[in-house]
Amino acid sequence: MSQSFVPVPVGSDFPLENLPYAVFSTKNNEAHRLCVAIGEHVLDLKAVAHLYPSAVQQSLQSETLNLLMSLGHEAWDIVRAETQKLLQKGSVLDQNLDLKAVAIVSQKEISLHLPAQIGDYTDFYSSIHHATNVGIMFRGAENALMPNWRHLPVGYHGRASSVVVSGTPIRRPLGQTLPDGAEKPIFGACKLLDFELEMAFFIGGPGNQLGESIPVDEAWKNVFGFTLMNDWSARDIQKWEYVPLGPFTAKNLGTTISPWVVPTAALKPFLLDNFPQQPEVLPYLRHSQPFNFDIQLQVSLKPANESETLISNSNFKHLYWTPLQQIAHHTVTGCNLRPGDLMASGTISGETADSYGSLLELCWRGTKTLDLQNGKSRKFLQDYDEVIIRGHCEKNGLRIGFGECVGQVLPAHPVQQ
Amino acid sequence: MSQSFVPVPVGSDFPLENLPYAVFSTKNNEAHRLCVAIGEHVLDLKAVAHLYPSAVQQSLQSETLNLLMSLGHEAWDIVRAETQKLLQKGSVLDQNLDLKAVAIVSQKEISLHLPAQIGDYTDFYSSIHHATNVGIMFRGAENALMPNWRHLPVGYHGRASSVVVSGTPIRRPLGQTLPDGAEKPIFGACKLLDFELEMAFFIGGPGNQLGESIPVDEAWKNVFGFTLMNDWSARDIQKWEYVPLGPFTAKNLGTTISPWVVPTAALKPFLLDNFPQQPEVLPYLRHSQPFNFDIQLQVSLKPANESETLISNSNFKHLYWTPLQQIAHHTVTGCNLRPGDLMASGTISGETADSYGSLLELCWRGTKTLDLQNGKSRKFLQDYDEVIIRGHCEKNGLRIGFGECVGQVLPAHPVQQ
Ligand SMILES: [Ca+2]
Ligand SMILES: [Ca+2]
Ligand SMILES: [Mg+2]
Ligand SMILES: [Mg+2]
Ligand code: NI
Repeated sequence: MSQSFVPVPVGSDFPLENLPYAVFSTKNNEAHRLCVAIGEHVLDLKAVAHLYPSAVQQSLQSETLNLLMSLGHEAWDIVRAETQKLLQKGSVLDQNLDLKAVAIVSQKEISLHLPAQIGDYTDFYSSIHHATNVGIMFRGAENALMPNWRHLPVGYHGRASSVVVSGTPIRRPLGQTLPDGAEKPIFGACKLLDFELEMAFFIGGPGNQLGESIPVDEAWKNVFGFTLMNDWSARDIQKWEYVPLGPFTAKNLGTTISPWVVPTAALKPFLLDNFPQQPEVLPYLRHSQPFNFDIQLQVSLKPANESETLISNSNFKHLYWTPLQQIAHHTVTGCNLRPGDLMASGTISGETADSYGSLLELCWRGTKTLDLQNGKSRKFLQDYDEVIIRGHCEKNGLRIGFGECVGQVLPAHPVQQ
Repeated sequence: MSQSFVPVPVGSDFPLENLPYAVFSTKNNEAHRLCVAIGEHVLDLKAVAHLYPSAVQQSLQSETLNLLMSLGHEAWDIVRAETQKLLQKGSVLDQNLDLKAVAIVSQKEISLHLPAQIGDYTDFYSSIHHATNVGIMFRGAENALMPNWRHLPVGYHGRASSVVVSGTPIRRPLGQTLPDGAEKPIFGACKLLDFELEMAFFIGGPGNQLGESIPVDEAWKNVFGFTLMNDWSARDIQKWEYVPLGPFTAKNLGTTISPWVVPTAALKPFLLDNFPQQPEVLPYLRHSQPFNFDIQLQVSLKPANESETLISNSNFKHLYWTPLQQIAHHTVTGCNLRPGDLMASGTISGETADSYGSLLELCWRGTKTLDLQNGKSRKFLQDYDEVIIRGHCEKNGLRIGFGECVGQVLPAHPVQQ
């Protein structure tokens, strides 16, 4: 690929081959508008929308990605190709100094917002290592995986309203818990606040009508792009509330996603074979098309006024269930998906203890201590801790990055009596 | 209250004291617009918006109720009082024959739509009789109620995209089930399709910011109004999928609500003492304000080409947890509510076998048969069955009704191999 006229520093997450989408605003113009990242700048898509084919112009002038998501993969290809052309050296944009001056904006000057209006958010549970670890801790090694786990991608409906963009502080929740050995629950601040390293993808394409399913072989048309996610989890609240209908207030306190949506097309060079599934899944979940990705994921923990410590190295490839299977299963009963819906992977844990995607696993339910720099240590999150999730693909000198998914824990509000 | 110039037949659900909101369109004007029901007609609120105080006019010209919901209880009171005034004999509207001719529309000539854009939908599990019945069936009488059940209103996040308005057909879902005694799951049409008699309320008011809670004593400000609901449930799919993260595809196949949103103000004459709670709940869930209602609920089942049979008589008053407690609990961890969010009660079962709110309970997990008219019988729903939920309050000659929540079961799609 030729070079961009916008400089892309070595090691940047955002070369011309990436072009992740985001929604941004500036101090001078607080209107939300679309952009793609290029190096340390963004291209304001609204400012250049008139240079695109007329069929996609309106979607590039929107305040969210929903309209572009709805147009489907052919339109996404057109926009992506056109954007790559515009950003190349000698392009019409490169030659139009006035337009370039307004359309290319430093990332230092922008605020980033939620990339889409999320109609519904679903959280899967698709890492076999994570599900096994949690199962061992709570039910013992013999019953670690539930009988359904290898037959369907277990998931639950999450709370869309509390999905927030990277950088939004997360308040330590108040809630109800049953202390060990107690007969009655108590009320107070969550003591076992945790993160969950996840990735999520946005639904695009026309979606499906209620009562219709999306076949697994067609599901790729509905995967617009990927973000990083931190599914903040109040373990003590979850333990008390989750039987029999699943996690509720333990998970709706906030879910953080990275601002950049990396298009599925940018991940193609990093396709891997799917995770081997045993026993064979039912036909509606079978697909031969590889839809697994080599995405390196890292979690760092940064206590207040301290430097950060890398506490986990994981990878998207550890997921047992593919996004295509998740879509096919989600819609098998006829549930309609809409552009902008968010589908999360569930905590992504690898096989080894340094690749676990939550403090619950890294500290094995509080029985181990995680050492941080400067003599600090953790079993669960403390106030003012910052959790930083990063992700990137790398191969033959090409690096496709996801930026950061960051959130800081604020102290709980005092309990009112 | 004086009389309306629009005739209200004896026994109507929609007297001047009710004025439930809906979103409608007509053949001549397919734009979605707001209305209130009065007798067998509706008042087109867009057509008369200019007669209201300017602060609420825009909300009455909207395509959904969300903006009106967001304005809060003082605005709701103003709109309600103004509407009652406009509909009275001799009002400015009554005297304006041209305006009256366009603003008063027969219900026979309208199509009804979802009343609001539902950002998130939550389903509670707040009937103690229902939770006990299900517990006895699946875990035995001794462990019927989970330890958490009397301490918090158990609930889970539902799927907002598949909430549909009364009259929308519901396709029998395909899905994965584990037949009794089988080692491997199978794929096919749901065999145990059920309804759930529920009521739901819409969130209004400004809502709350992420990280803040709504105190139980303030929660009334967030209850805009109530609808009937049928939470269609695939029992065989649910049984196989729901451990450990709760119901997922068994519930997202469709959830039907009645088109009319009865304002909380219209229910005031039917307030009852709250359901007695033992043991006493934690302070954040305590409220002395009565917020329980005497709403009579009926379920009828109508097989194809048959007349309907009344199969259940229940009442909103059987709910153990109040809407105010549901709101306080939902937000206790800081989850933000938004205008238009939908909160469902969970299946409303009374104490006696003729008041159960699902076929699961009425036929006690398929061990009993429900006799219908003309020699028909049911254990679960069959294709082309129609489920009709009705509700009304009645006292001292005043009847406040909810209309109907109707849905017909369509046959499953054939399984593709
Ligand atoms: Ca999760
Ligand atoms: Ca339900
Ligand atoms: Mg979350
Ligand atoms: Mg439902
Ligand atoms: Ni610059």
